[in-house]
Amino acid sequence: MEPAETVIDTVHREYKEETGLELISPQLRGVFTMVMEEEGMFQHEWMLFLFLAQEAAGEMLVHSQEGLLQWHPISMLDQLPMPEGDRLFIKQVLNHDRLLVGRFHYTPDFQLLDYHLHDTQECLCASS
Amino acid sequence: MEPAETVIDTVHREYKEETGLELISPQLRGVFTMVMEEEGMFQHEWMLFLFLAQEAAGEMLVHSQEGLLQWHPISMLDQLPMPEGDRLFIKQVLNHDRLLVGRFHYTPDFQLLDYHLHDTQECLCASS
Repeated sequence: MEPAETVIDTVHREYKEETGLELISPQLRGVFTMVMEEEGMFQHEWMLFLFLAQEAAGEMLVHSQEGLLQWHPISMLDQLPMPEGDRLFIKQVLNHDRLLVGRFHYTPDFQLLDYHLHDTQECLCASS
Repeated sequence: MEPAETVIDTVHREYKEETGLELISPQLRGVFTMVMEEEGMFQHEWMLFLFLAQEAAGEMLVHSQEGLLQWHPISMLDQLPMPEGDRLFIKQVLNHDRLLVGRFHYTPDFQLLDYHLHDTQECLCASS
């Protein structure tokens, strides 16, 4: 995040910078505590904010500072290389219409040591 | 937040420390960027996570490290001393069943300079 940004400002800016696309109505769907530890010793920690968007506008870059960009079908999720925690929360967010809160503990080379997702977040707007 | 806590772990721990009460099922309802600035100069910034809970267990402290504790009726909200941004988001969270994302800019003595709440967060679980 840059100074004075909201998490929604940040996802718009970063997605644009890294893909060339303007996200339309990204929804905050996860607030995670990410912890890196080595042999039981805490190393560092950051927060990860997960968004879901159904649409974007503009032309997608082929190459960006992040590397080669490609769309993948959701059915490929189990085959794509990514940290296991990312795979877990992407599946959750595609299957459950809830805000997720949890934590993921990794080794420095991104082996998932353990994780916890809270099961307490009620639905929002259910009665409106 | 303490190391490796999720935001929900933190609200349970801090509410207990400061009131003696165990919160039951606190719901994350706001993610805010708080900015303090003086004469247009950025000073510091923090994130504020807002929770709503309907119940708590245990016995409330009368005095805590935060001072004298008291319950107040919601109808007193406009009369109670608090930063104006807090009053604004408390009203929003009591009146709208949505997750709020936004920012609040303050002077060092907590005069609200401006604020923005995003209007983009869809309802969660509306169809379940």
